[in-house]
Amino acid sequence: MTIITLLSDFGSFYPAAVKGVILSRVRDVTLVDIAHDIAPQDVKAGAFALLSTAMYFPSGTIHLAVVDPGVGSERLSIAVESGGHFFVGPDNGLLIPAAESLGKPRAYEISLKLLGLRPSPTFHGRDVFAPAAALLAQGRHPQDLGPEIRPKCLSFGAPRRTKKGIEAAVIYVDRFGNLITNMRNPPPRQVRFKGIRLKAVETYSQAKRIEPLITVGSHGFLEIAVNKGSAAEAFGLKAGDRIELEESDCSE
Amino acid sequence: MTIITLLSDFGSFYPAAVKGVILSRVRDVTLVDIAHDIAPQDVKAGAFALLSTAMYFPSGTIHLAVVDPGVGSERLSIAVESGGHFFVGPDNGLLIPAAESLGKPRAYEISLKLLGLRPSPTFHGRDVFAPAAALLAQGRHPQDLGPEIRPKCLSFGAPRRTKKGIEAAVIYVDRFGNLITNMRNPPPRQVRFKGIRLKAVETYSQAKRIEPLITVGSHGFLEIAVNKGSAAEAFGLKAGDRIELEESDCSE
Amino acid sequence: MTIITLLSDFGSFYPAAVKGVILSRVRDVTLVDIAHDIAPQDVKAGAFALLSTAMYFPSGTIHLAVVDPGVGSERLSIAVESGGHFFVGPDNGLLIPAAESLGKPRAYEISLKLLGLRPSPTFHGRDVFAPAAALLAQGRHPQDLGPEIRPKCLSFGAPRRTKKGIEAAVIYVDRFGNLITNMRNPPPRQVRFKGIRLKAVETYSQAKRIEPLITVGSHGFLEIAVNKGSAAEAFGLKAGDRIELEESDCSE
Repeated sequence: MTIITLLSDFGSFYPAAVKGVILSRVRDVTLVDIAHDIAPQDVKAGAFALLSTAMYFPSGTIHLAVVDPGVGSERLSIAVESGGHFFVGPDNGLLIPAAESLGKPRAYEISLKLLGLRPSPTFHGRDVFAPAAALLAQGRHPQDLGPEIRPKCLSFGAPRRTKKGIEAAVIYVDRFGNLITNMRNPPPRQVRFKGIRLKAVETYSQAKRIEPLITVGSHGFLEIAVNKGSAAEAFGLKAGDRIELEESDCSE
Repeated sequence: MTIITLLSDFGSFYPAAVKGVILSRVRDVTLVDIAHDIAPQDVKAGAFALLSTAMYFPSGTIHLAVVDPGVGSERLSIAVESGGHFFVGPDNGLLIPAAESLGKPRAYEISLKLLGLRPSPTFHGRDVFAPAAALLAQGRHPQDLGPEIRPKCLSFGAPRRTKKGIEAAVIYVDRFGNLITNMRNPPPRQVRFKGIRLKAVETYSQAKRIEPLITVGSHGFLEIAVNKGSAAEAFGLKAGDRIELEESDCSE
Repeated sequence: MTIITLLSDFGSFYPAAVKGVILSRVRDVTLVDIAHDIAPQDVKAGAFALLSTAMYFPSGTIHLAVVDPGVGSERLSIAVESGGHFFVGPDNGLLIPAAESLGKPRAYEISLKLLGLRPSPTFHGRDVFAPAAALLAQGRHPQDLGPEIRPKCLSFGAPRRTKKGIEAAVIYVDRFGNLITNMRNPPPRQVRFKGIRLKAVETYSQAKRIEPLITVGSHGFLEIAVNKGSAAEAFGLKAGDRIELEESDCSE
């Protein structure tokens, strides 16, 4: 049973049309939702969610992902192979961080002509990516779907050093209000944010109740959290915001 | 593996009880959620979601749908066959637009006596529709569940011509804020809504950023949208609202 | 095909990592989500959702549940057998009401050393409970995972008699705004809440439109509802609130 995961910003019921198309073409598959509540057209949030989950699936899994502000424009549809995993989705960078985490991605255009597809102009999840995923589940390789291309990249941005410390960005806010940043290194021991000390911990429960903290999240990125509270609320931050952390050498 | 789709307004965790009952009776099924976040008791929204998705599943699929303000009243429980698909749910019109899109529906009462069911008065999804769907998955036909009846219908209403143009209704607002109307014809070339010109396009990206537009949605209904914005917010509209579009013959 | 249910307060996309780990270890399983929108760290709400659904699954089902404010602290990870069902999750009472509803629970520590697990400090759903559930799905028994222990209990509290009637607590508010209380007995015939008479009914439709009512919910707990309305809004109540019902002997 091939596994096909699904990720989108579709919200309610549209993902079921995608699943119906897949199941009409191939029945011997296990469908697993990653998320369909990605903020509308937030390609970075979708890429982060895919990066955080794809690697836990077994080799051979097909990941169908659609966060696609450019649907109906000239952007290509692509199939990607990396480290034994397969990805289908729009060529807007959505698939790339996850694919890069698994190996060296090779990307192929999904040729509508070759596949005999005439998609609606607004729903390529159903009309392009579902048939393409079904073909992969039936044993076709991405290179059977069209010519190899160089895919568009996506970067979460690199933190940069400032006079006082580090400037970084919030790439995702989870439902606990934890602020996931684009910093990957272990946090400095002494760090302040907006004048408040962030306790560097290995796990939330090492902080006191409602104490702000910084930790390495389960996805490998640094996150700013408030133990049993919401850092997003406490600091008034959302995805995309830039933050500056101050480092200090003295203990308190 | 028979496919059983599930649609409801149950929100969290109640759908799992329905699935548990099905899996206790028949194991060789593939369960696919359509949506469980239909607005509470909004039969039209549920009917629209089912209509938009059921047709993409293969013949033989069983669709279990429950949006059921009349649970515990005299309304009947029904099983419907249409175009090789099967439906189970309340007799309140919920199933009918989807069934009609697939063929000529034939509806049968689910006889509680015949099936030996003694349902709780508030949860027929678990106590009636799940056992009925399991029977269909085991190869029983809707006509085995009870006598043929004429089901209650449901209409999304027909747009009507006015002096200035067309009066229609919003039947669904999706998570992008797109207003899905009950108009099915291609839009007139020149159309204004609340004094604002709606650009008639084939796909969102043919409009400028934040430009209001009208297009044929992937479900075949006309929808009013704002490219990379929310038409629901821009125009202050919600499901059920009536709208009037003005047609003009002159170009601008 | 062993069934594994999943319940958590993870919200979006983290549950997929749990599923990926399970499917990497055992493929012949049916995964069923119970809910992932439990209010963050609300162990009682999670316990109520699990209690309301676990019993509908067939014997042999494995229930993986994580609402885990104490992750990374000294709290144990446990596997529980009860009435032929299996549970894995944190030892904080989450699993116990459901397990008790099915039989006499026997609980075992999940020994990280025995299983060779070195979990991240913040995501035991992925790093401990998923591997443990996979072992059970492969035929291992909870007693193979570690020593038998006495699990932490969780109570929804008992209603108590007051001068005027009964004091109880709201343990869950569903999406219809129904207030699910910790009272299990049939309601008294004449009962008032905040000065308003609650009609005792068997099903919502026995009340008039917008009439407050009290009924035995499908889960066996008494719930206060407003027919085609929201009791939570009408009475301004939320999960955890205490309420006092007044009984009267005279009819009105």
